[in-house]
Amino acid sequence: MAMGTVTAPWKQLLLNALESNANLKHSSFFQLATIGSNGRPSNRTVVFRGFQENSDKIQINTDCRSRKIEELKHCPFAEICWYFTDSWEQFRINGRIDVIDGSNSDPMKLEQREKAWFASSLKSRLQYLGPLPDLPCLSEQPSQEFSLDPSTGPVDAFCLLVLDPDQVDYLNLKSSERLTFTSRQSVNEEKCWTSKRINP
Amino acid sequence: MAMGTVTAPWKQLLLNALESNANLKHSSFFQLATIGSNGRPSNRTVVFRGFQENSDKIQINTDCRSRKIEELKHCPFAEICWYFTDSWEQFRINGRIDVIDGSNSDPMKLEQREKAWFASSLKSRLQYLGPLPDLPCLSEQPSQEFSLDPSTGPVDAFCLLVLDPDQVDYLNLKSSERLTFTSRQSVNEEKCWTSKRINP
Repeated sequence: MAMGTVTAPWKQLLLNALESNANLKHSSFFQLATIGSNGRPSNRTVVFRGFQENSDKIQINTDCRSRKIEELKHCPFAEICWYFTDSWEQFRINGRIDVIDGSNSDPMKLEQREKAWFASSLKSRLQYLGPLPDLPCLSEQPSQEFSLDPSTGPVDAFCLLVLDPDQVDYLNLKSSERLTFTSRQSVNEEKCWTSKRINP
Repeated sequence: MAMGTVTAPWKQLLLNALESNANLKHSSFFQLATIGSNGRPSNRTVVFRGFQENSDKIQINTDCRSRKIEELKHCPFAEICWYFTDSWEQFRINGRIDVIDGSNSDPMKLEQREKAWFASSLKSRLQYLGPLPDLPCLSEQPSQEFSLDPSTGPVDAFCLLVLDPDQVDYLNLKSSERLTFTSRQSVNEEKCWTSKRINP
C-alpha cells in the first residue's frame, strides 16, 4: 500500500482542490499554526502565494513586524490547515518555515523575495508601508494614504515565508477518504514521499 | 479606550458573525491549533458545538482516540482561528481546554458531556462507533454499518472539549477594524475582560 516517489504525490490533489474551488475568493486562504513565544499555540488566516518554482514548497507573504516572525524564530515549525468549503477537502501540511527578509545573505533567496513582491498586487504591497501592525491604534482618523511606484522593489517590512512540507494529511469528507503522506530525505538529498491510506 | 467588563464583550461579535453567515454550512467550522507530542504545531478543522450554558466557554465534540486528546494532555492550551468567509471576519480565540471523557470524576462535567451527546445528531453519534481513527485502513470494503438506539447515552469514545478563552483577537477585513480582548481573574473569581483597538 505504501509507495515511494520523489515528486510530492499530494501536490496534484491540492492543485485539483484549488481548481475545483477557484470560484471562491477564500479558497486561497488557509490557517497557519505556529508556537507562540509563551509556548502556546498561535493560529491565523493567511493567503497562499503559490508553490516555489518546481517544488512543493508553499509561499506566504507577511510583514516582518508581525508577531509570527518572532514566533518562527523561536520555533520554525508550522502546520497549515486548509479546508476547501466547496469540495469538503482538508489538507494539513506540516513543515519547517524559512523566513526570508531583506537582510538574508543568500542571493537566491533575496531573488525569490523580490519575485514574490512583484507577483503581489500594488494594493497588497501598499500594506507594507502602513503603520506597525499589532500596536494600539492611537488616532481616530483613518490611516494615512501611501503611494508606491510599481517598479520599486520590496520594502524593508516585506517578508517571504517558505514552508517546506514534510508531512501532509489529506481528508475528503465527501468520499470519507483519508491519506497521509510522509517524506524522508533520500540518499541524493532529494525528498522522497510515501503515502498511506488511513481510517477517516 | 480600555474598559473592564465581566460578560465577554467579544461574544456578541461572534454571535453576530454566526448569524450573518448562517446560510453557509461551513460557518460553524473553525481551525483548532494545539501543540503536538513532538513539540510541533498541530492544526485541524473542527465543528463549533455552541457555548456552554451562560458562559463564554466553547464546546467541541471529539473522539477520545483522536491524536488531539493525547496532545492536550501534554499541553492543554489551544488557539481557535475562525474565519467567516461571507463577512470577512476573523476570531482568534486562545485558551485552555478541559478534556471531558466518561472517566471524569466531576458529576457536573459528566452531565455536560451527556447533554453534548444528545444535542448532536444521530448520524454524528454513529461516528463514535466506527473503527479507530488515525489507524491504517486494512480492508478495502466499506466500513461496517452500525446502529444506535437514540436513547443510548454517550459511548466510551465520545469526548467533550471545553475551551475557556482568555485572549481573543478580532479582525474585520471589510472595515479594517481590529480589537483584542484580554481577560484576567477578578477578586471574586469572575473573569474580567478588557478590550483594546489596535492597528490591523
